[in-house]
Amino acid sequence: MRIDVLTLFPEMFDGVFSSSILGKARDKGIVSLNTVNFREYSNNKHNTVDDYPYGGGGGMVLKPEPIFAAVEDLPVHRTSRSSDDEPTAAVKPRVILMCPQGETFTQSKAEELSAEQHLVFICGHYEGYDERIRQYLVTDELSVGDYVLTGGELPAMVVIDSVVRLLPGVLGNEMSAVTDSFSTGLLEYPHYTRPVKFRDWEVPEILLSGHHENVKNWRLQQSLYRTLERRPDLLEGRELSKKEQAWLEEWKRQKQE
Amino acid sequence: MRIDVLTLFPEMFDGVFSSSILGKARDKGIVSLNTVNFREYSNNKHNTVDDYPYGGGGGMVLKPEPIFAAVEDLPVHRTSRSSDDEPTAAVKPRVILMCPQGETFTQSKAEELSAEQHLVFICGHYEGYDERIRQYLVTDELSVGDYVLTGGELPAMVVIDSVVRLLPGVLGNEMSAVTDSFSTGLLEYPHYTRPVKFRDWEVPEILLSGHHENVKNWRLQQSLYRTLERRPDLLEGRELSKKEQAWLEEWKRQKQE
Repeated sequence: MRIDVLTLFPEMFDGVFSSSILGKARDKGIVSLNTVNFREYSNNKHNTVDDYPYGGGGGMVLKPEPIFAAVEDLPVHRTSRSSDDEPTAAVKPRVILMCPQGETFTQSKAEELSAEQHLVFICGHYEGYDERIRQYLVTDELSVGDYVLTGGELPAMVVIDSVVRLLPGVLGNEMSAVTDSFSTGLLEYPHYTRPVKFRDWEVPEILLSGHHENVKNWRLQQSLYRTLERRPDLLEGRELSKKEQAWLEEWKRQKQE
Repeated sequence: MRIDVLTLFPEMFDGVFSSSILGKARDKGIVSLNTVNFREYSNNKHNTVDDYPYGGGGGMVLKPEPIFAAVEDLPVHRTSRSSDDEPTAAVKPRVILMCPQGETFTQSKAEELSAEQHLVFICGHYEGYDERIRQYLVTDELSVGDYVLTGGELPAMVVIDSVVRLLPGVLGNEMSAVTDSFSTGLLEYPHYTRPVKFRDWEVPEILLSGHHENVKNWRLQQSLYRTLERRPDLLEGRELSKKEQAWLEEWKRQKQE
């Protein structure tokens, strides 16, 4: 997979692209991570990439030319079919605009994007985008949540991290074994490790019992209770097993007391 | 404001803490941004900070001791009342755990946190947290969205950016003037800047008319339509003006045709 990020602040990505999972995926050759400062594509002597909005009002708007030029100047990414005399097909990139008006990013979107071969992220920085960028260049508009950020850089890093960790060969066993909250549909149960007693606080006895069936049941029950308390919306549309329904009744009874 | 981040990957923060708004806020002395590698607080010769989970299963769990020790070793932050002989009171920090089970982060949470004087972020990295950290050390658990990330570092950066930009003196006029989507309750209207014609695509005539009232109405209407199409959930519970109701009827009629 090839990922290109258009940004006025490429240095923000240095630490993130070279550490941890992203750094490892890059070192293994699974993903190529690149930043492009689109100021290099400004077509005027002052190197400006933004201008005043038509119709007046505050704020600045990113001009269409530098963004179109930077995207169109990206190297063409070709599929990696080898052992074949035909030239491989050029991959049409997904061009993703990070903005608060975008579709809310979710785990299923991460899975969808992880099947692509070339992703391009456009990160504005407190300016607006000229609407023609949205209409004629961009394939996806994404928002990572309902809060205001200074720019699209942090949201792009969030999307890139969640997508790259899904690529085959990126996660080692130690991590893929971790139960993911959003794949089971329930929040995670409480975890405990040594020491058995830390200050005055002890690990629940059941986890020390060695009784696997009881541990499994306790964990499932705790997951269900935590989800009921914190994110009941995650349970909508989920079919509960008989055991889960009985726990749910018990939880409701306890709540009423 | 003082912000401390506990992480095993402090180098991920370098580029983000020194660029753009966060770098400027730091240079102006408005916020102090610090990272602490809590591996330095491991109390064993192998410097491990995680261990196997009680009750079995895959994955590793962050041990309580290093995290408690690192938080308790942070410098006490005092209120900045000066011109006063009494010693200033120590500020009790908000200790924030970044995790998928947390409360969903929103703009109103950002506003709440921006009134604090000392924030501490705990970033795990694909491991689980020993439950005693949640129960006895942490004051807030936050999630930035429903997707799986490698660690709490990127979510912490997201929260820090959204909080710091709200501190007085951080945003210049050029930015504070930008209409924030989540403060008006509607998504932003389309923006346009020069050139009037880019390739075949022209700026809507109304924006060139110089008629302020018409421009204002067009923008409000576009905001409403965009919100209806993309995020109808944002309109729930919102009282629409008569003009907005008329537009809403027109939009529905157009949809049906």
